[in-house]
Amino acid sequence: MAQFSIASIALTQVFGHPFISKTIPLLAASTEAEADEGLVVAGVLLSLVVIYFASKLGGEVCIRLNLPPVLGDLVGGVVVGVSVLKLLVFAEPGVLPESSVVINLLQSTAGLEPAAAAATFHSQSEVISILSELGVIILLFEIGLESELKELIKYGPQAAIVAVVGVIAPFATGTLGLIYLFNSPLIPAIFAGAALTATSIGITAKVLAEIGRLTSKEGQIIIGAAVLDDILGIIVLAVVASLVKTGDVEVSNILYLIVSAGVFLVGVILLGRFLSPYYVALVRNLKTRGPLLISGLIIAFILSYIGAAIQLEAILGAFAAGLVLGETEIQQELEEQVIPVADMLVPIFFVVVGAKTDLGVLNPAVPSNREGLIIAAFLILVAIVGKVIAGFTILQPNTNRLAIGIGMIPRGEVGLVFAGVGAASGALSESLQAAVIMMVILTTFVAPPLLRVVFKEPEAEPEEATG
Amino acid sequence: MAQFSIASIALTQVFGHPFISKTIPLLAASTEAEADEGLVVAGVLLSLVVIYFASKLGGEVCIRLNLPPVLGDLVGGVVVGVSVLKLLVFAEPGVLPESSVVINLLQSTAGLEPAAAAATFHSQSEVISILSELGVIILLFEIGLESELKELIKYGPQAAIVAVVGVIAPFATGTLGLIYLFNSPLIPAIFAGAALTATSIGITAKVLAEIGRLTSKEGQIIIGAAVLDDILGIIVLAVVASLVKTGDVEVSNILYLIVSAGVFLVGVILLGRFLSPYYVALVRNLKTRGPLLISGLIIAFILSYIGAAIQLEAILGAFAAGLVLGETEIQQELEEQVIPVADMLVPIFFVVVGAKTDLGVLNPAVPSNREGLIIAAFLILVAIVGKVIAGFTILQPNTNRLAIGIGMIPRGEVGLVFAGVGAASGALSESLQAAVIMMVILTTFVAPPLLRVVFKEPEAEPEEATG
Repeated sequence: MAQFSIASIALTQVFGHPFISKTIPLLAASTEAEADEGLVVAGVLLSLVVIYFASKLGGEVCIRLNLPPVLGDLVGGVVVGVSVLKLLVFAEPGVLPESSVVINLLQSTAGLEPAAAAATFHSQSEVISILSELGVIILLFEIGLESELKELIKYGPQAAIVAVVGVIAPFATGTLGLIYLFNSPLIPAIFAGAALTATSIGITAKVLAEIGRLTSKEGQIIIGAAVLDDILGIIVLAVVASLVKTGDVEVSNILYLIVSAGVFLVGVILLGRFLSPYYVALVRNLKTRGPLLISGLIIAFILSYIGAAIQLEAILGAFAAGLVLGETEIQQELEEQVIPVADMLVPIFFVVVGAKTDLGVLNPAVPSNREGLIIAAFLILVAIVGKVIAGFTILQPNTNRLAIGIGMIPRGEVGLVFAGVGAASGALSESLQAAVIMMVILTTFVAPPLLRVVFKEPEAEPEEATG
Repeated sequence: MAQFSIASIALTQVFGHPFISKTIPLLAASTEAEADEGLVVAGVLLSLVVIYFASKLGGEVCIRLNLPPVLGDLVGGVVVGVSVLKLLVFAEPGVLPESSVVINLLQSTAGLEPAAAAATFHSQSEVISILSELGVIILLFEIGLESELKELIKYGPQAAIVAVVGVIAPFATGTLGLIYLFNSPLIPAIFAGAALTATSIGITAKVLAEIGRLTSKEGQIIIGAAVLDDILGIIVLAVVASLVKTGDVEVSNILYLIVSAGVFLVGVILLGRFLSPYYVALVRNLKTRGPLLISGLIIAFILSYIGAAIQLEAILGAFAAGLVLGETEIQQELEEQVIPVADMLVPIFFVVVGAKTDLGVLNPAVPSNREGLIIAAFLILVAIVGKVIAGFTILQPNTNRLAIGIGMIPRGEVGLVFAGVGAASGALSESLQAAVIMMVILTTFVAPPLLRVVFKEPEAEPEEATG
């Protein structure tokens, strides 16, 4: 660092433009272990090219097989990711920079020094991970914009029942089954059961948008239930984690989460209704480029930040922002401008999810996976049946109850958080952890095509035809 | 790290979703020095909110004062940056996390532990810096799309003369002036003279687009000359740096740069013309969302990568990609989809440039600045006159020669690279370095309003009215 930092200070003292160490190899220290920003940019560009190729190839194949394109993103991600081609791998403990094809390419074509490979790998991974998080934030913002607040409120009670039953049914069945069928101890059984409660709002919402069913009755019930499920999931996780750690449940923390979630969502909607006329009037007076988009992003990012800060999730804030702005007269115009931004950022999220998926846990040739595979089969059954049952709690006639249940199936990233916390706290054995991970993978990859089957005929113009 | 890494492995083994340490404070190690991804996301969201506020406030004020909005981005950046409010500061040697308002906010509202502040600060800075680099890449892609290859070729010889004179005139005057007027030794004088040769294509191109003059004759000459100037700048830097380091000029390296730049630009344009019908046919068959935008970004990012890898610049690759795609029948449609992406990312670049500008070097109360100020006044004069003279080399009648010269004035980030390399190699004294930095700041901030004055009446619909 010593030699380079003088240049860095001088450079970044005023403006920062990072082509210094490449154009002047003479001045770059060969023992340099800091990542050069220009090379990180180059690595990010290569990673994005890989992501977009994977997304487009996967999506185009899926759409021709009458499968949802988002499944193409996920499968495309698996192919370019850690499981197969290793074009897109992420810096984690135990993963060497040499395993990344992008880092190897930077070394062979762009003059990356081996000494700086680890730092560059770390920075490039981090930037792509954050871009993928921005992608899911933009996705939920777009879903919020497309959702109807009135419909969500109208179907709110039904969505609440679906969410609650969809949490209790798989949790109870899973926990009791593990205890009585597999002789699992209580705490691991509770943890695995808790992992069954999650719903990945991102995947379901994307599929609903793709098949043009987002604004259908079933679509709005699923979205409402998935949002509530996200909040319930956070609460369940807090309860279970506190149980494991202290053997007790911290009631104050649980109450805090429930109250803050309620105050946040209701507060945003009420405040939004009150302030939106002023907002629209203000935006109409802006004369610089992109007034709608930028002011919309400001609101989305502020609410995402608050969502994250009060220990809910950033994506809940983005969804709430979209919901509120979706009620204003600028909704149509704003949505049109959000679409290209979503086209650019959302695939990053899904491809990264696929790329980080290690299919190694599914390999039955590995002995330690076998016990996990049997438990996994049980968990997958419970995961699917538990959510389908939740769908059938809707008593209203002319409702596609099966579709609602299927829509709640994908556990996605939320289920994995349970596996991760469980492993970190020592509550989950290795085979049980592998089983939970398998359950998450299967439910996530199986839901998109199933959802397409149960919604037979599209009733609205599908999203992909508008692009 | 020890306690957290187990959870990290398990989590990122399959999917990565970063709300773990916030929702489960019980499990987060308080001595943890790694940055938590969820908090980095939160910090990035806050930084983006600051950037968009600065850009919109600055831009709206400027447009009402009949100044170019991009000046608002720069000034807005200065106000929120290291010089004034410190809402947006960047991790560099000597800058503590506590000086960042965003990091302080994360600590007080989102539960960031002091031990992890430095790592979070570093990651957040890095992500914003990379986003700003993506911003300038998208900007040059958009400028390329809007430019006319035919016009650029038509005005190519004139642009080449402007570029060459615009490099030689300030270099010779600056170097000789420093030697004879200020008794500067040879090497520092050559270095400071070299810093005078740069042109910031980003700032001028943005202003030209804003006042609707990008596709005018003058606009295309400026863009052509600025692109050539960028290449010349890289060559001059290589020559000067090799001179300082070895006292000699590495001819092979210089030849490599000239040949690779020529082969790259000519090759991209020829290959582009040959391949673009196949590309258009392919894109027309894509059925998933955003086919034009994503395939366009793939091309832009690949060429940006190649530009960076062969020791030119990423932005040259992006410009070439835009130029080639701008010749196809999908130009109009693609440009419409690039606009929102540019609206989102481009302001990040300009606000970050402003935020990193340390106005401290302009303070005459600091004794060490005074000598620099006098030299700076001389350098600024040379910087402006040298480029204006270059504009007057155009012999064609009915050409706004003054505008062409003014368009070449802003040194922007390229000039700073010279200052940085000069400081790192020990070639520039402290006062000379401060003088170069002042020259860069002044030319960068003064050019946008001047450019607006010399192009009196807009001949085309200004860009901001289309947003």
